[in-house]
This record gives sequence, C-alpha cells and structure tokens, in this order.
Amino acid sequence: TEINDRLAEAGQSHLVQFWDELTPEQQAEMTSDLEAMDFQEINKFFRSAMEVSCSSKQEKMDARMEPVPREVLGSVTRDRDCLKDWEEKGLWCISQSRVAVLLLAGGQGTRLGVSYPKGMYDVGLPSHKTLFQIQAERILRLQQLSEQRHGAKCCIPWYIMTSGRTMGSTKKFFLRHSYFGLCKDNVIFFQQGMLPAMDYNGKIILESKNKLAMAPDGNGGLYRALGTQGIVEDMDRRGVKFIHVYCVDNILVKVADPAFVGFCVQKGGDCGAKVVEKTNPTEAVGVVCKVDGRYQVVEYSEITLATAEKRSADGRLMFNAGNVANHFFTLAFLRDIVQTFEPQLQHHVAQKKIPYVDTQGRLIKPDKPNGIKMEKFVFDIFQFAKAFVVYEVLREDEFSALKNADSQDGKDTPTTVKHALMSLHHRWVLNAAGHFIDENGTRVPAIPRDGPAGSGTADVNQNLKDGTDLPIKCEISPLVSYGGEGLEELVSGREFRPTLVIDESGAHELVKNGL
Amino acid sequence: TEINDRLAEAGQSHLVQFWDELTPEQQAEMTSDLEAMDFQEINKFFRSAMEVSCSSKQEKMDARMEPVPREVLGSVTRDRDCLKDWEEKGLWCISQSRVAVLLLAGGQGTRLGVSYPKGMYDVGLPSHKTLFQIQAERILRLQQLSEQRHGAKCCIPWYIMTSGRTMGSTKKFFLRHSYFGLCKDNVIFFQQGMLPAMDYNGKIILESKNKLAMAPDGNGGLYRALGTQGIVEDMDRRGVKFIHVYCVDNILVKVADPAFVGFCVQKGGDCGAKVVEKTNPTEAVGVVCKVDGRYQVVEYSEITLATAEKRSADGRLMFNAGNVANHFFTLAFLRDIVQTFEPQLQHHVAQKKIPYVDTQGRLIKPDKPNGIKMEKFVFDIFQFAKAFVVYEVLREDEFSALKNADSQDGKDTPTTVKHALMSLHHRWVLNAAGHFIDENGTRVPAIPRDGPAGSGTADVNQNLKDGTDLPIKCEISPLVSYGGEGLEELVSGREFRPTLVIDESGAHELVKNGL
Repeated sequence: TEINDRLAEAGQSHLVQFWDELTPEQQAEMTSDLEAMDFQEINKFFRSAMEVSCSSKQEKMDARMEPVPREVLGSVTRDRDCLKDWEEKGLWCISQSRVAVLLLAGGQGTRLGVSYPKGMYDVGLPSHKTLFQIQAERILRLQQLSEQRHGAKCCIPWYIMTSGRTMGSTKKFFLRHSYFGLCKDNVIFFQQGMLPAMDYNGKIILESKNKLAMAPDGNGGLYRALGTQGIVEDMDRRGVKFIHVYCVDNILVKVADPAFVGFCVQKGGDCGAKVVEKTNPTEAVGVVCKVDGRYQVVEYSEITLATAEKRSADGRLMFNAGNVANHFFTLAFLRDIVQTFEPQLQHHVAQKKIPYVDTQGRLIKPDKPNGIKMEKFVFDIFQFAKAFVVYEVLREDEFSALKNADSQDGKDTPTTVKHALMSLHHRWVLNAAGHFIDENGTRVPAIPRDGPAGSGTADVNQNLKDGTDLPIKCEISPLVSYGGEGLEELVSGREFRPTLVIDESGAHELVKNGL
Repeated sequence: TEINDRLAEAGQSHLVQFWDELTPEQQAEMTSDLEAMDFQEINKFFRSAMEVSCSSKQEKMDARMEPVPREVLGSVTRDRDCLKDWEEKGLWCISQSRVAVLLLAGGQGTRLGVSYPKGMYDVGLPSHKTLFQIQAERILRLQQLSEQRHGAKCCIPWYIMTSGRTMGSTKKFFLRHSYFGLCKDNVIFFQQGMLPAMDYNGKIILESKNKLAMAPDGNGGLYRALGTQGIVEDMDRRGVKFIHVYCVDNILVKVADPAFVGFCVQKGGDCGAKVVEKTNPTEAVGVVCKVDGRYQVVEYSEITLATAEKRSADGRLMFNAGNVANHFFTLAFLRDIVQTFEPQLQHHVAQKKIPYVDTQGRLIKPDKPNGIKMEKFVFDIFQFAKAFVVYEVLREDEFSALKNADSQDGKDTPTTVKHALMSLHHRWVLNAAGHFIDENGTRVPAIPRDGPAGSGTADVNQNLKDGTDLPIKCEISPLVSYGGEGLEELVSGREFRPTLVIDESGAHELVKNGL
C-alpha cells in the first residue's frame, strides 16, 4: 500500500509491526492517523532539533549575553510617572477594538493531576470560578472600562489555542457556560499541531499497538497554527492591530493589560515581553536578554552560576528580566512570522520518559528518559523583532501559575495561586480604605501575621516570612474591578470580617466555614 | 509571713491560694521561687508595658517613618568595590582579639517541637552537625584565617546567653562535645532573666497549683543580663572592642563576619544592623528605619499597606531594610546601654494563650489569648546610637532561620534551612570551578531544575520557581571554608556525584542513600 511505502521510505515501518493483531476498527483508525502525517517532515524536524540540541551551545552562551538596555525597558516601579499615560493609551486602543487577546491553552492538566484542560480548573476560591471564567470576566470588565472612558462600543476578541486533546472539552465548557457572558462570535477557538514522540534513533514511539505517542508541538506551535487556521486573516478582518498572548495557568494575568499594551504601542514596539524581576540568582526562571545582539529568552539551565550572579552597578542582578509568558505582538509582526520566519524556527528537544510497547507488544514504563518530544517555544520569535520592548511588573500583582497538584511544600499549586489572588484582592480593599477585623472585632494589621493568632511579636520579630501564606479570605469579581479600580464606594471606611466577597451585587461577608 | 505581706501588698496573693494542698517539698520550692521575685518591679513593668501598648501609636507611625539614608548604608551588591577593604579591616580587628560574638540562645525549641535548646538541633545535614557545632566551627575557622593573614595568635570569645530553662542543658552539651574544639575559657555562658506571664488585670498566672507561668524576658533581656552577670567587665578585661550579636536559629549566620565588622568599624559606627532587602510589600519582616529621627525596627504589623508599598526612585521598596537579628555594637556603646539606658526601655506586650489553673485548681488551656508575656527586644537600643550604620547582605547567602517543625508547606523548618545551607555550599563549589554530575555522568546545570529528572524544558519554561527547592546535596565543613574561600585546590576541574561532603580530610562522595 501507499502508506507502507511512505513508512518504509521514512524508516518508520515499525509503526505497523502489530498490524495483523489489530481489529478492523483499530486498523481503520490507525490508517487515518498515519495518512495525516508527513513522515519526511517529521524526520527533518528530528534531525535539525537533535543537531541543535547536541551542538553544546551552553559553553558559549555566557559570553554572548547582554542585559536588556534601560531604553527599551518600562517598569511599573521605576517609571511610575508614565503609568497613567500608558494605561490611557492602551484603553484608547482597546476602545477602538484594535486589541485582541490570545490564550495558550493547548496543555492538559497532567502535572495538576486532572485529565481536562487547566482552564476548567476550580482552584477553590469562594466563588469557585475557574481560570477560564476569571479571564473571561476580566475581558468583559475591560471592554466596559474602555467604553466608559471613550464612549464607544468596543470588543476584545479572544483567541483560544487548544490542542487535539483539549479542543472538544474546551469548546463544550464554554458553550455550557454561555461563554461567561462574552459574545460567542468574539471567542475564537483554534488548534495547535501535534507531533510524535521519537526515540533517540528517530523512530516514532508507539504508546500502544495501535497508537502513536503524540504530543502538542509546544506553545510555539502557535505560529504555525496561526497560519494553517487562518487566524491572522481573521484578526485582520476584525481590525485587530495588537495582540496580547498569555498562558492559561497564571491566575493573576491581566488580559489585554492596557498599561502593557499602551507602553508597547507608545514605544513603537513590534514585539514585547512582560517580565518580573528575578532577585535570586538560582531561581529557576528564564531571563529575557540579548544574545549576539538579538533578543531571546535564556533558560536557567543554559547559564553558569557566575553569569546568573552578575550584578549591575545598581545592585540588581544583571540578567533579571524573568519571563512570565506574557507577550505583546503587532499584527504586522505576527504576519511576518507566519509568512516568513516560522519555518526557520528549530524545534527544541525535551527528553522525556515515554511509555511504549516493546517488540513483544508489552507496555513499558521507563524510569529514565527514553526519547524526546519536539517543541517550539512562544518566545522563539523574539529574535525577529525590529523593535523589541520589555515591560517589568510586580510578581505579587501579576504572576502566579498553576502547575502542580497540592502537596507537601508544593509550589504553583491550587493553594498557592488561590492565596496569591486573595492576597492581591486584600490589598485592593486596603488601598480603597476598607478594613478587615477579626472575630473579636479588632482590626487586622495590613500585613497579616502568619503564625497562630495571638502569637507574640517576639516570636516573629527576627523572622522573614512570605506574608501571602495565610491571607485574609477575600475575593473580588473581575466584573467589579479589573485592577483594583472602582472599589472606594464599596469599601471605603467599612470594616469587613472575612470571608469577604465583592461581586455585582455588592460586598458580602460569607458565613465562616460556609461555602 | 514576710512573703504573704509582700504578695498582699502587690495584689498577688492568689499565687498562694493552693498553699494548703501542696506537699512540704512543693511549698519549699515555691517559697524560694517567690522570695526571688520583686513583685513591685514586676507590677511596674506591667503597668508601663500596657500603657505603651494601649496608646495606639500605630496610626501615627507611617508619617514619622524615614528610610535609611544611603550614607549610612553599606551593601554587598552596591558597594562591591569596598568589600575587600571591609573584610581586611575586620580580619585585622579579629587578629587583634578585639572582636567577640554574642549568641542569643535563651529560647526553647517549642515551635520546633523539641524540649531542648534550638542550638542542639540536628537539621539532618550529611554530617548531622548541630547549629551550635556549625557556629563553633565557623569561629574556629575565622580565628585560623585571621592568624594566617596577620601572623598572630588570636581569639574570638563566644558569649552565649541562655535562660533559666536552657542553661543546664546547653552547658552540658558543650562539655560533652569538648566545646567543639574551642578553648573552654573563651566560651562564656550567662543567663537572661525570666518574667512571669500576667493576665490582663496584672495578676501573675499560675501554670499549676505550685508553679508560676514564667518566660524569658525577650532577647532584649540581653542588656540587663550583661550588667547583672558582669559580662561587660569580662569583655573589657579581654580587650574586646566590638561585638557581633546574633540569634541561634540562623543556619547561615556569618559569626563575627569580618566584612560586616570591618564596615561598621570603618564607618565609625557604634551600633549597626545587618539587613536583607525586603522585596515584597506584604512580607512579614520588621524593617530598620528612622522614626522621629531615631533608628528603630518597625514591625510589619505596625505599618499600613500604603507605607509598605512606598517605593524610592530606583524602584526598590522605600522601607526595605529587613531585620535579620544580626547586630554590631562597640563595647563603649554597650556599656552606656547597660549603665544608663537599659532601665528606660519599656517591655513589649505579647498576647499569648497561657495555660493556667482556675480557682478550682483545674488546668485550663485557653483557645484565645488570655494574658501577656513581657519582653524587651534586642533592637530596642538602636534609638540610643550616636552613629548608626546598616549593612545589607544577600538573604540567600546569609539568612535562613529554623523556627518550626517540618510540615505541609512549612516555612523556616529543618528542611528549608538544610536546603538553604546545601544550596549555598553548592554555589561555593561551582564558583571554585567544581562540577556536579548526575547518575548518568552528565553535568548538572548550575541552576537545578526542580521537577522530576528529565522533565522537558517546555514544562518549565514559563515557570518561576525557587531553585533552592531540591538542591544538590553538598555540605562543606566550616573548618574547611568560612565563606567559600580555599576550595579551588579541592574542587577545581573535578566532577562530583552528590552527596558531596568536604571536610578536613578532603572531598568525599557519600554512597547514595548512605548515612
């Protein structure tokens, strides 16, 4: 048959080694899987990915790295005078319907321990809102803010990239929740590609006798998908000029952040990255910097400690622009990427433990990496920017990612992201002149003590703790406030007993242990 | 009897309400307890402590706060050119035997879940060294370094403040371990005072029918003890001029840190505080600042969020000098304190849940605070400094405190302090051009990935994690290196498989799962 010839030609004939054992249904399914695949292209991807991965660039990286120059950097802490202007500019762009948001949601919640898309996860807020709902409501509120400010109806289209594995359930979820109040036409789903996992010899791995081990092609699969699915054209048709791209797992994400958009536009940037300050040299975060004069993200595993520890004259780490996967692109830039540059991007190699069937057809779960997945990264295109800009924000205000299930000393868990959101909302209430009181009616200090109630100051006066540990229970609906605005009339001068929930019907205290 | 009269006069007669039920031994013991106490003084302490505590100074604090001016600040990240000079100066002072260290170790490991002094705790390092041993060995090494540098025998006397509860076991522990190699004469134990816990009416609380609820008088009890126990005279006799005071629970503490001492001496400071940068406004740490023109530590519970969030033009938090209970004093300053100012210091009030016997003699464990402990703080004397100086260091290099038992998402636990120490030693090895390899013989990146081995970069490329989470297992004896020095000849160009232990007999790899 034609498929057998193509497989033989590509050195992938082992994929059909169990053919005779398959049921007719399985054979039919596998045939259609195989027919859809371009084995020559996959082999080419494998060869160039391995080539790049093996040419130990690591040694040379340090000497080639340069920090982000101050001229291209905007900072919420160092450029506070400009913030209002940037935000105004961004709101104006939004009011003209020129800004779209694009959500990277192709991953499954594997590390989180669930089998559905992460955006559907309920982290346990008083409202039990999912990540998708929180983001949808922020879009709604931001449209409203722009309309109030500029007196014209506007729309922020929401592009949602799923993968083969998450498309169906994601769409159903949105439908079931009536798109969380958004106009259905302005929520556009599209799908990133999948690639097979390969062993170190370039053979595609079988995860069962009748199924190839497939995985999404990385969040950088975005750029190929933008082309194949006609998304760039759709944006053009809608008059979109600027796109904010972000990942689903950041509970604090400021979708279409007007200050970020306004900063990038004002600076004339075609490509921008939102970053947070890396303060500890050994923190495991990629940093935005220049390498050989071009911008890129250097992963923490690629640099030496000496480079990670380098400091500028102001005492900050020299390479401190921590990537948080929040990017700004002009449509023109994205079009160039899709049309010209995307094919030049190499896949990165991720070594993985990939369950497979051996030649006897037994399922093996390896205990060390036995193959690779090939992925592109969303930031791989920074190198093509003509006017790259960087925008530094505060981590505690804007970044807390959901990655893992709750566990002993867990990082990036449902509990940590829930606390991060409640801590932010607590601060919003305080800054709007609201107060919290405890069960005895006494005011809770702004920075809550995270020991047992009533523990003396002497216990903690030499102590350094993260105050977000045991936050005041407080949740503010994005429909009421996008970034802390508009709360004075609801909370100023009032005293609240947690749990406090502020939504469209006002400020409520939930009964303790309730909900 | 005379005691009954004194009790009646002081309104504390309830202390003997169960007298007739006590055995003769209990009566004798209680008599001697009561005889030793100055009830009039205790009542006076209570009155003034409550007076200060109730005059809600909180409201006014914010407007009176000023940050530490740059002129009095030395920073390891911003004044790197001066570091070598400061260290030299400090080593010279040490070589002249002018520097002593003073350890605050009066607390018991209650929150840690043990009944012995914290310094005796083994946090689970490969060597199983206790905090006391680690600190002792740092003193030994520093004496050696100063001697090598300046060719003269020198001594760093070690003053250890215990409390009534910890004196016996602490002394025994040192004796049993032969003072960890230090000269017995240069380890000087002394004892801080104890004060009774009181209810809100100023009545001393009985913890059982025959025992008062007693607690150490806070780490600021130091100053009274320095006088009553003749410590200032002892220092004077030994020719000590400069004293480094620190708390037992910081596993990274640089005892008698030459750079810190040298900085303070060079600046002409009489009183100095080592601080780390507070980077998150809601972090629960006290900050060193000026209030009404005088230096003090303002507790996180005393300031409003607006003040905590204030930033300087350079983008840093305005009040960012996080106190880590590491202080420098000249002997002349300490003498003034002891002779003149100590009695002026008010006790602070710490509300506590204090188990007590009720009038029926039943033991009650309250579930909310029912009384207070009175404590002075070691930093209460900053206000009396004529030349206050501040020295900013890196938290990851110098501060990790042991406070709590290991637990779900625990902070300041045996695990976190052990990791902090191993992470520091890992960095020392890398900076001395050593390398670590994994079980497959491949080099481990400088910043270890804290996911499962072989997890792909794609999983973590948008992730922000604390790299100290799963550190390379590596421990370097303080007898070999005080601050990272002298390791090149042992590790340069070599590859190590963790667990790596470097001690006086060289660099060893421990068998995995061994020890």
